[in-house]
Amino acid sequence: MPRALFLLLIAAILPAQRPELPKIQDWKGRTILVFTPHPDDDTFGCGGTLALLAKNGNRIFIAIYTNDDKGSYDLDMNSQRLAAIRKAEEETACSTLGISKENILWMGHHDGMLEYVNPLALVEQTTAIIRKVQPYAIFSIDPGREDVRWHKTDHRMAAMNTVDAIRASEWHLYFPNQRLSQGLMPWKPQWVILYYTKPADANIWVDIDADLKIKAAAAHVSQFEPAIHKYRPDWDPTELEKFTAGFKTRLPKKDGRYMEAFRATRY
Amino acid sequence: MPRALFLLLIAAILPAQRPELPKIQDWKGRTILVFTPHPDDDTFGCGGTLALLAKNGNRIFIAIYTNDDKGSYDLDMNSQRLAAIRKAEEETACSTLGISKENILWMGHHDGMLEYVNPLALVEQTTAIIRKVQPYAIFSIDPGREDVRWHKTDHRMAAMNTVDAIRASEWHLYFPNQRLSQGLMPWKPQWVILYYTKPADANIWVDIDADLKIKAAAAHVSQFEPAIHKYRPDWDPTELEKFTAGFKTRLPKKDGRYMEAFRATRY
Amino acid sequence: MPRALFLLLIAAILPAQRPELPKIQDWKGRTILVFTPHPDDDTFGCGGTLALLAKNGNRIFIAIYTNDDKGSYDLDMNSQRLAAIRKAEEETACSTLGISKENILWMGHHDGMLEYVNPLALVEQTTAIIRKVQPYAIFSIDPGREDVRWHKTDHRMAAMNTVDAIRASEWHLYFPNQRLSQGLMPWKPQWVILYYTKPADANIWVDIDADLKIKAAAAHVSQFEPAIHKYRPDWDPTELEKFTAGFKTRLPKKDGRYMEAFRATRY
Amino acid sequence: MPRALFLLLIAAILPAQRPELPKIQDWKGRTILVFTPHPDDDTFGCGGTLALLAKNGNRIFIAIYTNDDKGSYDLDMNSQRLAAIRKAEEETACSTLGISKENILWMGHHDGMLEYVNPLALVEQTTAIIRKVQPYAIFSIDPGREDVRWHKTDHRMAAMNTVDAIRASEWHLYFPNQRLSQGLMPWKPQWVILYYTKPADANIWVDIDADLKIKAAAAHVSQFEPAIHKYRPDWDPTELEKFTAGFKTRLPKKDGRYMEAFRATRY
Amino acid sequence: MPRALFLLLIAAILPAQRPELPKIQDWKGRTILVFTPHPDDDTFGCGGTLALLAKNGNRIFIAIYTNDDKGSYDLDMNSQRLAAIRKAEEETACSTLGISKENILWMGHHDGMLEYVNPLALVEQTTAIIRKVQPYAIFSIDPGREDVRWHKTDHRMAAMNTVDAIRASEWHLYFPNQRLSQGLMPWKPQWVILYYTKPADANIWVDIDADLKIKAAAAHVSQFEPAIHKYRPDWDPTELEKFTAGFKTRLPKKDGRYMEAFRATRY
Amino acid sequence: MPRALFLLLIAAILPAQRPELPKIQDWKGRTILVFTPHPDDDTFGCGGTLALLAKNGNRIFIAIYTNDDKGSYDLDMNSQRLAAIRKAEEETACSTLGISKENILWMGHHDGMLEYVNPLALVEQTTAIIRKVQPYAIFSIDPGREDVRWHKTDHRMAAMNTVDAIRASEWHLYFPNQRLSQGLMPWKPQWVILYYTKPADANIWVDIDADLKIKAAAAHVSQFEPAIHKYRPDWDPTELEKFTAGFKTRLPKKDGRYMEAFRATRY
Repeated sequence: MPRALFLLLIAAILPAQRPELPKIQDWKGRTILVFTPHPDDDTFGCGGTLALLAKNGNRIFIAIYTNDDKGSYDLDMNSQRLAAIRKAEEETACSTLGISKENILWMGHHDGMLEYVNPLALVEQTTAIIRKVQPYAIFSIDPGREDVRWHKTDHRMAAMNTVDAIRASEWHLYFPNQRLSQGLMPWKPQWVILYYTKPADANIWVDIDADLKIKAAAAHVSQFEPAIHKYRPDWDPTELEKFTAGFKTRLPKKDGRYMEAFRATRY
Repeated sequence: MPRALFLLLIAAILPAQRPELPKIQDWKGRTILVFTPHPDDDTFGCGGTLALLAKNGNRIFIAIYTNDDKGSYDLDMNSQRLAAIRKAEEETACSTLGISKENILWMGHHDGMLEYVNPLALVEQTTAIIRKVQPYAIFSIDPGREDVRWHKTDHRMAAMNTVDAIRASEWHLYFPNQRLSQGLMPWKPQWVILYYTKPADANIWVDIDADLKIKAAAAHVSQFEPAIHKYRPDWDPTELEKFTAGFKTRLPKKDGRYMEAFRATRY
Repeated sequence: MPRALFLLLIAAILPAQRPELPKIQDWKGRTILVFTPHPDDDTFGCGGTLALLAKNGNRIFIAIYTNDDKGSYDLDMNSQRLAAIRKAEEETACSTLGISKENILWMGHHDGMLEYVNPLALVEQTTAIIRKVQPYAIFSIDPGREDVRWHKTDHRMAAMNTVDAIRASEWHLYFPNQRLSQGLMPWKPQWVILYYTKPADANIWVDIDADLKIKAAAAHVSQFEPAIHKYRPDWDPTELEKFTAGFKTRLPKKDGRYMEAFRATRY
Repeated sequence: MPRALFLLLIAAILPAQRPELPKIQDWKGRTILVFTPHPDDDTFGCGGTLALLAKNGNRIFIAIYTNDDKGSYDLDMNSQRLAAIRKAEEETACSTLGISKENILWMGHHDGMLEYVNPLALVEQTTAIIRKVQPYAIFSIDPGREDVRWHKTDHRMAAMNTVDAIRASEWHLYFPNQRLSQGLMPWKPQWVILYYTKPADANIWVDIDADLKIKAAAAHVSQFEPAIHKYRPDWDPTELEKFTAGFKTRLPKKDGRYMEAFRATRY
Repeated sequence: MPRALFLLLIAAILPAQRPELPKIQDWKGRTILVFTPHPDDDTFGCGGTLALLAKNGNRIFIAIYTNDDKGSYDLDMNSQRLAAIRKAEEETACSTLGISKENILWMGHHDGMLEYVNPLALVEQTTAIIRKVQPYAIFSIDPGREDVRWHKTDHRMAAMNTVDAIRASEWHLYFPNQRLSQGLMPWKPQWVILYYTKPADANIWVDIDADLKIKAAAAHVSQFEPAIHKYRPDWDPTELEKFTAGFKTRLPKKDGRYMEAFRATRY
Repeated sequence: MPRALFLLLIAAILPAQRPELPKIQDWKGRTILVFTPHPDDDTFGCGGTLALLAKNGNRIFIAIYTNDDKGSYDLDMNSQRLAAIRKAEEETACSTLGISKENILWMGHHDGMLEYVNPLALVEQTTAIIRKVQPYAIFSIDPGREDVRWHKTDHRMAAMNTVDAIRASEWHLYFPNQRLSQGLMPWKPQWVILYYTKPADANIWVDIDADLKIKAAAAHVSQFEPAIHKYRPDWDPTELEKFTAGFKTRLPKKDGRYMEAFRATRY
C-alpha cells in the first residue's frame, strides 16, 4: 500500500487534527487542471472559482471527458450536431470565465458511455494529461457525493477515474511508456479540490462573482428550455430572465455572500 | 449534464423543500414496471404493494434480470432444473399477487453473473424494455442500500443498471436504433419507487395485506428449508407454519399496521 | 435471493438484536484465511491479531492479490525487482508474526491493476482458494470503508471481490467445474472479519502486542523513507526510530491498551 | 467435439465423395433466413436467388447485423440520418426482390463496430433469431473468403458469428434460458448457403434475373456516386445508366447466363 | 520481433531446405504435453500415437480446455451431468491408451465458450501449465486447418491460444509473477506436433494400433448414437459394431497401414 | 458495404485485369507512414526501401505498436530496461536508414499484449495517426501471411488493426470527435504497401542497398546472440561477422539483385 494512503488510514483512526486548507484566492501564476465529465459541469461546479483564478493570473486547463452528444429532447437533433453545439457553448462559457479555448482538452468520449469505455485505457489517458500539464492543483467532481453512489453515470466514472489517475501519476512505474517514449515524468499535485461535494463534506468556500457565473452558465443554451426541446442557438429573452433569477436564488450563500463549496485535500 | 440532474444537484444544496410524493393507493389503470434482480426480490421487496396495485386495476409488468439458477445447497440439483423450478415458483407467487405470467419478462441472465455481463448490452436491453412498456411508475431495488454498497452482487448491478436505463430511456439519442428500427420512442416515467431501501431513506409507506404477501413469499419453496438443502416441490407443513410465523413477526409495521417502505422520487 | 441475504435484509429493518460476536483470543487449532490487496495491508490491518492467532496454534494462510510492483519513487527501480523486494519483505513480516512463507498464497496480479483484471476470472480464482483452504474465519479488507467508496483502487476491488467469492463459495452451482475436476466442495466460513473498517462500524477489538506489530510493519522497508525514494535494503537507524515512535502514537487504543478494531459478521 | 464436426474432420481426410447439393430452384414453401452484415450485402451477394425463392413462394427473412451508419463521404451527413436512409433503401431493395419489410430483422448494431460488440451477446442474439425463424436454409456471408481473412471488419465478424450461432442453435444447452423462458427449441437448418464465396469454393450456381438484381442494387442510392459524396435521394440519370451497365458487365456468367455462385453445405 | 520468428520469416523466403523431423516412435522417457479443446479431440486426433508413446515409457499429460458440457441432443440432459459423463468417458479413453487419470489436467472452461473467456487469463493459465510440465514435445490442434479458419469455435481458440502460450513460455518477462511467486522458469519444448492438420501440411506419419484407437474412441459413448440423442451409459451392441466398422474405414492409411498424420515443427 | 470494398468483391470474380502498381523508386517529396508491430519489423520488412525513399527526399514516419519489452533470455533483464534498450536500438536503425528519431511515433503498447489491448481504442488511436500524418502511402505488415494465420500475436493484431484503421480513416463518421475536437479530417492514402508478404502474393520488388539494410538490422543488438542471452550493448565482432554473412545469404534476390518484395494495392 502506497505510503500516502497508509497515512490517510492511520489518520482516519486518530482524533481529527486540523487539516491544512488551500487559500485559493491567494494563488497567482499557478497551473490549474480541471476535470469535468461534461462540457458544463465545470461551469456549474466551480465556474466562479475558475473566473477568480483566471483573473489572478493562473493558467487553467479544462479536460472534458465527454462530448455531451445525447442530452436533447429535440427529435430532429443528431449526435454529431449536438456535439458541435456543446463544444461551441463550452468555449463561450470558458471565454466568459477568462479561459481561452486553446486550454480546453477534449478527451473524446461519448455522452453517457464513460462507464463502458475501456477503464484501463481511460486511466492511462488521464494520467498522461496530468503528467503533461503538471498542475499545482486539480479540480474534479467529488466521488463521495450521494448521487454518485446512487447514479452510475459519467459522473461516477469521471469522479473515480480522476482520483485513480492522480494516484497513478505520481509513480513512474504506472504506464512507464509515458516516461520512456513521451518524456512524461511522474507528477503529484499539491491540492485536489473536489466540486459537487456533499454539503457535509465541504471544507472550503470561495467567494464568487455570481453574475459572471450565471452568465457563463447561460452560455449552455442547449441544456435548458426552450432549446433543449426544440433547438435554437439563442435564448428566448423571457426564459433567460427566468433562468437567471432561478439560478441566483439557488446559488449557495454563506454569511450573506455567494459561494462555491469544495472538499479540498492536501495531496 | 442533463437538466434533470442539474436541478437535483441544485436542490441538494438548498434547504429541503417538501418533495412531492406518490399516492400509490389511489393509482388506477396505470402501467407499472417492476425490475427485480431475482425471481423473488419483487415478492419480498414490494409484493404487498403490487397486490394492491393489481387489485386496483393497474397493469403490472415484472422484468426479472436473472434466472436464479445457483442458490441451492442440494448437491443433486443442477442449474437447468433449478432455473425451471424458480420460474414456476415465481409464476405462482405472481399469480397469488394478481399478476399473470404473461406479464413476466425474463431478461435471461444467470444467477450471480450480472456483474460480468456486458454492461452496455445490459443497459441497452433494459432501456428497450422501458421504452416498450412505457410505464407510469418503475419499481426497482434501491442502489443506495448499505448492503448494496458492501456486497457486489446481482443486487448492486440490477439497482444501478436500472437507474441508468431510466436515465437513458428519456433521450432519443441513446440507442437510436431502437427508435429507427423498432419504433420505440423515448420515455420518462412519472415515478421511480425504490424497494429494499434503507429505513432512513424511506419516504412513503404502503399499507399491505400481510397474509397475502406471506402466501406469495411461501410460493418460493426452493428458497427455504427444507427444500433449499434437499429439493422437494412442497413445504413440510411444520416448516411452513414456522416460516409464516417468522416472516410475519419480521414484517415492518408502522402505526400498528403492516407496511412496505419505499424511497420514491418524482422523475 | 439466497436465504442468508434475505435474513440479513429482514434483520436490517428490525430493532437491532445483539449480534453474536467472535472471541478471537479463544480460538485454537482453527484455520484462518486472510485476503490482502497488497503484501503489507495484512500487517497494517490485522498483524497484531494474526500474531496472537499464530501463537495460539491456529493455521494461518495469507492470500495476496497483487505483487505491489509499482509503489516506488526511485527512478532506477523497475517492476520485476520491486516485486521481488516486496515478496521478501512480506515473508519477513509474516515470519515475525509467526506465519511461515509456505502459507503465503500469491494470487499473481499486478499492483494497481486489480480493477482491470477480468472480474469473473478473479472471483473464480478467489472462490477456489476458499474452497481449498476451508477456513473457519476469513479476514479481509472492509468494502464499507469511506475511502473505498472514494478511491477506486486495488483496495476496493479486493474488498468487494472477496465478499463476492465468500458468497459464491457456499453454492456448488457457482463454478461447478471446481467440484467436478478438482474435487473442491462448497464451503462457508463461520466468520467474516473485516479490517481497515470505519471506526463507527467496528464491533470487536483485539488486544495486541504493539511492539511485535511495529516490528513486522518495519519489515516493509521499501514502503517508507528513505527506501521509497532511493532504494536500500535496510533502514537508516534514525529513520527507523522515528518510524517506530510515529507508528506507536498512531496505533488505536482502547481502555489504555493497543488494539486492532474489526467489523465481524457471523456468516 | 460434436459429432457433426467429427464427421467433417474424418471426411476431410478421405477421398472426396460427391457431396449432396441443394436444388434451390425447386424449393417451394420453405422458410429461408438470410444474414447480412450491412443492408446491401444481401442484395449484392444473393439478391437474384432471393428473388427467385420469393417468386416460388418461399418465406424469406433478412437479418441485418448493422445499420450502415458510417459509409458516406458527405461531410454534412450524420449517423442518425444515414441509418434512416439506408433502412429505407434496404426496404426498397427487398421490395424489388419480393420481400416485404415486415420480414426484415434489424439486429441493431452500428456500422464498422461489429468486431467490438460483446461477442457472447452477439452469438446469443443470433442463436435466438435462428431458433425463432426455424429456417430450412440459412444464407450467410462466407467466412472463408480471402478478403475476410485479410480485412477484419463487419464482414468477418458477421461471417464467423453466423456459423457459430448455427452450431449453437442445435444444442439446447447453449443459452438454455431461450428454451425455458421464451420457449425456443433447438434448431438445425438443412442447408447453409454461403455467398461472397471464393470462386474456387463455389459448388452451386443459380440462374438469376440480372435486370431485377441490378434494379434492387440500384435502390441503394446512397452507396454510389453521386449520392455517396453529396447526398441526394435519387440517381442522376446518366450515373444510373453507367452504374447499370457497369454492374451488368461485372456480373458473373456461366454457360452464357447470369449466375450467383455459392458454397453450399448439407448441415 | 523475437529471434525465432525472424528466422522463420527468413526461411519462408528461401528455397525449402529439408526441415528436421521428429522420430516419435523412438522417444523413450520423454515428457509429452497434449492440449485438446474437448475431452475427445486428443483421442481422435492423436490417440494412436499417444498409446505408442505411453507403451514406450514416456510420461504423458493431457490438458483439456473445456468440459464439453453442451453437446447432447437429449432434452433431459443438463450441463452439470453431461460434464461429469464426459469426464468419466475421457478417463476411460485415456486409460485405454495407457494414460492414468492423474495425468489429466482439466482447465475448467465451458464447452463452446472458449472464444468468450478472457484471452489474457487463458494464455497466462496455459503458459503456467507448460512451465510446470516442462514438456519435451507439445501436441496441439493445428491452427492452420481450413475448418479452423472457417469455424470460430473452441477449436480455433484452443489452437491459437496454445501456440501463443508456447511462444510466451520461453520468455521470462511474460507473466513474470509465475517465476517470482511459483518458481516457474521459462521453458521451450523441442517439438510442436500439430494434429487435425490439413493433409497438405502433414509432414510426419505415425503407424498406429487402429483397434486400440477405436476402442478408446468408443469410450466416448455419449458423443455418438444412440446416447447423444437419449443418454445411456453404454452402447447398443449393433450400433457399436457399426461405429467400429465405420471408424475403421475412415481412418487414414498410408502404404497400407493405419496412420496418424501430423505437422511437426522443431521449436 | 462501402463502395471500395464492393468494387474489390466484384473484381475478385472477374478475370484478373492488370492492377495498377506503384513506382516506389520514383517517389519524391511524398509523405510515407510505416506501421510496425515491434521496433525492428520495419527494418527487417522494408528497411531497404525506406532508405531509398529517405534518400529521394520523402518524409517518413514510423508508428510502432509495441515497445518490445519482453524478448530477452537474459534472466537479469527487466521490462523497463529492455524497452529503453529497444527504443535506442530502433533510433539507431532508423538513423542508419535516414529517418530521424523525431519521426518515430511510439504507440505505447507492451510486447506480446496487442491482442489483449482494447481493440476499439486501438483502431481509434491508429485512425488518428493516419488522419494526422495524411500519408501518400502506408506500409504495414501483411495480414495475409500464412504465419499470421497460424500465430496469433502482435503481428496478426497489428496487421489487421492497420487495415481496419485505413478503412475507418476515410469516413468522417468513424470517430467523429477526431474531426470535431482535433480538426482531423478524413484521409485516404493512395497506396497500401504490405511487407512480410507471402512470396506468392508479392506484386512489386524494390532494388535495395543490402549492406545498408544489414547495417540497420545490426543496430538491433539485443535481438541477437550473444546479447539476447546475456545483455551487452555491443556486438562481439565474430558474431557480428557471422550475422552479417548469414543475413546476406538469406536476403531474397531477383534477377541477381537484392530485393524487398511487397504486396501493393491502389487504395
